[in-house]
Amino acid sequence: MSRIADVTVTPVAVKDAPLLTSIGVHQPYALRSIVEVRTGDGITGLGEAYGDDTTLHRLRTAAAALPGLDVFDLNGLAARVAAALAGVGAATPTELAGEASVAKAVASVVAPLEVACYDAQGRLLGRPVADLLGGRVRDAVPFSAYLFYRWAEHPRDPGYAPDGWGEALDPDGIVAQARRLVDEYGFASLKLKGGVRRPEEEAEAVQALRDAFPGHPLRLDPNANWTIETALRVLPALEGRLEYLEDPVPGRDGMAAIAARTGLPLATNMCVTAFEEIPEAVALGSVRVVLGDHHYWGGLRASQKLAGICETFGLGLSMHSNSHLGISLAAMTHLAAATPNLTYACDTHSPWQSEDVVEPGAIAIRDGSIAVPGGPGLGVELDRDALARLHEQYLRCGFRDRDDVAAMRVAVPGWTGHRPRF
Amino acid sequence: MSRIADVTVTPVAVKDAPLLTSIGVHQPYALRSIVEVRTGDGITGLGEAYGDDTTLHRLRTAAAALPGLDVFDLNGLAARVAAALAGVGAATPTELAGEASVAKAVASVVAPLEVACYDAQGRLLGRPVADLLGGRVRDAVPFSAYLFYRWAEHPRDPGYAPDGWGEALDPDGIVAQARRLVDEYGFASLKLKGGVRRPEEEAEAVQALRDAFPGHPLRLDPNANWTIETALRVLPALEGRLEYLEDPVPGRDGMAAIAARTGLPLATNMCVTAFEEIPEAVALGSVRVVLGDHHYWGGLRASQKLAGICETFGLGLSMHSNSHLGISLAAMTHLAAATPNLTYACDTHSPWQSEDVVEPGAIAIRDGSIAVPGGPGLGVELDRDALARLHEQYLRCGFRDRDDVAAMRVAVPGWTGHRPRF
Ligand SMILES: [Mg+2]
Ligand SMILES: [Mg+2]
Repeated sequence: MSRIADVTVTPVAVKDAPLLTSIGVHQPYALRSIVEVRTGDGITGLGEAYGDDTTLHRLRTAAAALPGLDVFDLNGLAARVAAALAGVGAATPTELAGEASVAKAVASVVAPLEVACYDAQGRLLGRPVADLLGGRVRDAVPFSAYLFYRWAEHPRDPGYAPDGWGEALDPDGIVAQARRLVDEYGFASLKLKGGVRRPEEEAEAVQALRDAFPGHPLRLDPNANWTIETALRVLPALEGRLEYLEDPVPGRDGMAAIAARTGLPLATNMCVTAFEEIPEAVALGSVRVVLGDHHYWGGLRASQKLAGICETFGLGLSMHSNSHLGISLAAMTHLAAATPNLTYACDTHSPWQSEDVVEPGAIAIRDGSIAVPGGPGLGVELDRDALARLHEQYLRCGFRDRDDVAAMRVAVPGWTGHRPRF
Repeated sequence: MSRIADVTVTPVAVKDAPLLTSIGVHQPYALRSIVEVRTGDGITGLGEAYGDDTTLHRLRTAAAALPGLDVFDLNGLAARVAAALAGVGAATPTELAGEASVAKAVASVVAPLEVACYDAQGRLLGRPVADLLGGRVRDAVPFSAYLFYRWAEHPRDPGYAPDGWGEALDPDGIVAQARRLVDEYGFASLKLKGGVRRPEEEAEAVQALRDAFPGHPLRLDPNANWTIETALRVLPALEGRLEYLEDPVPGRDGMAAIAARTGLPLATNMCVTAFEEIPEAVALGSVRVVLGDHHYWGGLRASQKLAGICETFGLGLSMHSNSHLGISLAAMTHLAAATPNLTYACDTHSPWQSEDVVEPGAIAIRDGSIAVPGGPGLGVELDRDALARLHEQYLRCGFRDRDDVAAMRVAVPGWTGHRPRF
């Protein structure tokens, strides 16, 4: 046995870029929480979660129930967390799309704790986490460049200097951003976060990317910011140019309506975000690709369960990302490496984050991929100075929840973020 | 790394009882193969499979491809086995119900090798296999008494003396058999292997069991030996008396037709025996309970994948058994212990086997359950004298495939085993 002695949860804030989304703009700081699971035999496992107040409170509530648990007892972990969170209500973290549910709330708390247990297991056994997930089927995991419409700086930003990436508000700006990301990281797939500009403009950006990067698979994600009519109008300009179109419209019925009218595969991280939502999506044929994300599906084992369902029901499997740090990037990499049918390049916001809590060097995007760390556990080490500094930044920054709508309102008074806007 | 140095496959024959089935009768010997995976660092992991010639040949073909494989690399195991068996054709082991497929053929070979890898992992780490499957959710796994119509002895049996259980060909005989099994093992659930006597007689046996054991959940398994008309005729005598009715009729369409006409849950280990068969069964609503069996679903991880699918799609999950020995019983116990939604008592033929290859005592049915072995790996040890003796018995016995039809023909010339017979 290797039993948990204590669990600490440390919120951090990292500088974030003014990336535009369907409902607003990223705040100047992205919030994350860093989970450390310490065992009685002196092993520390790392996990990473959302950093909003709701998640923090739940993580700490769950953490208090874990001392004594064997780090291999992942079924026990899920049971203890569910019991500790009985009665927390259905509210889900602000970063999680779709309808709230108790199952989703529990899953988002289990996830970082389970990752930390896997990290501890791996350190204990001297094995990479991928080995504990069935073994790597690929030595390096391909990631996609995540292109954003963006401003050069945050509106009335009190905090810090522009990040040097400048503005991208039209096809030329998006192509230039893609060029720099491809040059610096070698990305071989490109994803454009859409739902920001007029749909026709976004289709023009897709065409400009298609022309500039003829060999790169492309994706567009309007984040449910189009009506069905809009989506049907724009579809002809996208068909044949994208490997998949992500969440053009809200809801499984809406997605099913679009799916019935196009051969372009539809992907989602919005209308299927929990196991309870899969049967209806399968019955309706709403989507052909599900974007998994261990943070809200309930961890690495739950993500493999999702993978098994996708394989069985003929659904593609890709990987979603919110802003995250190196612990999650490592977890995503081990998971993807050990999941045979995760054949799409994974999403990551990583290039937009200039700060991290892990020591540099262990994981890096080269040639568009991350080599699976060969060291024990996740293969990343906590930089305690960085953790302390970014926790201080959290305390100072004043943000306690992700709120793209409020951030947008700083520039656009009266902004509501209402979807679908187009 | 703990790499495989060599794999040996030893066929054994164990005395079997004259148990009647839908297509005939058990042969005087049941065939199994014992798999030993030896690592370079001196660990031996155990697995157990069918013992028919087809399985033996495939196991040995696959075994030759495994030296050098890390015992943690279960994805690599599946890939190597699939590659080694490319071109073997779709014929599946004789004990596996349903249509043959290459995927099923591969799964039935991966399974015992994966169990042996898990046993090796557990021995290496000093942990029970259940820990490597996510941790036990129950300390003891309930099993069901497996009642059979049977003869007192094999027809013209040259081999050995009657086993002392006597004949059971009517409700009184079945109740007496159940009484003895309950007294000796403490079983708290009862399953009757049906499809043998006239359906009305089997319904009478169910009623007799219901009267004699009012608190025991009951199951009946006609093994697809009834027509739809017969099933609909007999259903009223079964409804309210069974926890589920297993495979009354052949095929997913047939099962769906029955399911639409009864509130009695239908279970199957015949019309859904591989992942490729799940989507249609879900769409048709053919079954409400799937009986998993790691031997043909592809091992312990694959069985957990099945469990995740059942949980997600609201299907019950139970466990199927063919005649097997202690290695498989241990694997079934660890798997069931670590599978939260495996809430039905598992099937096992174990009480009908008087011979085994494992040292006695590590696993035993008491109070209807098997306590999960706490020792490393599967928690059972190979008895090498017994292995040699039962291998000799295999060489001598003359059987090379399971063939209930041929065994029946010894007593009933011209017997065809054709289903549905009623
Ligand atoms: Mg998305
Ligand atoms: Mg059956």
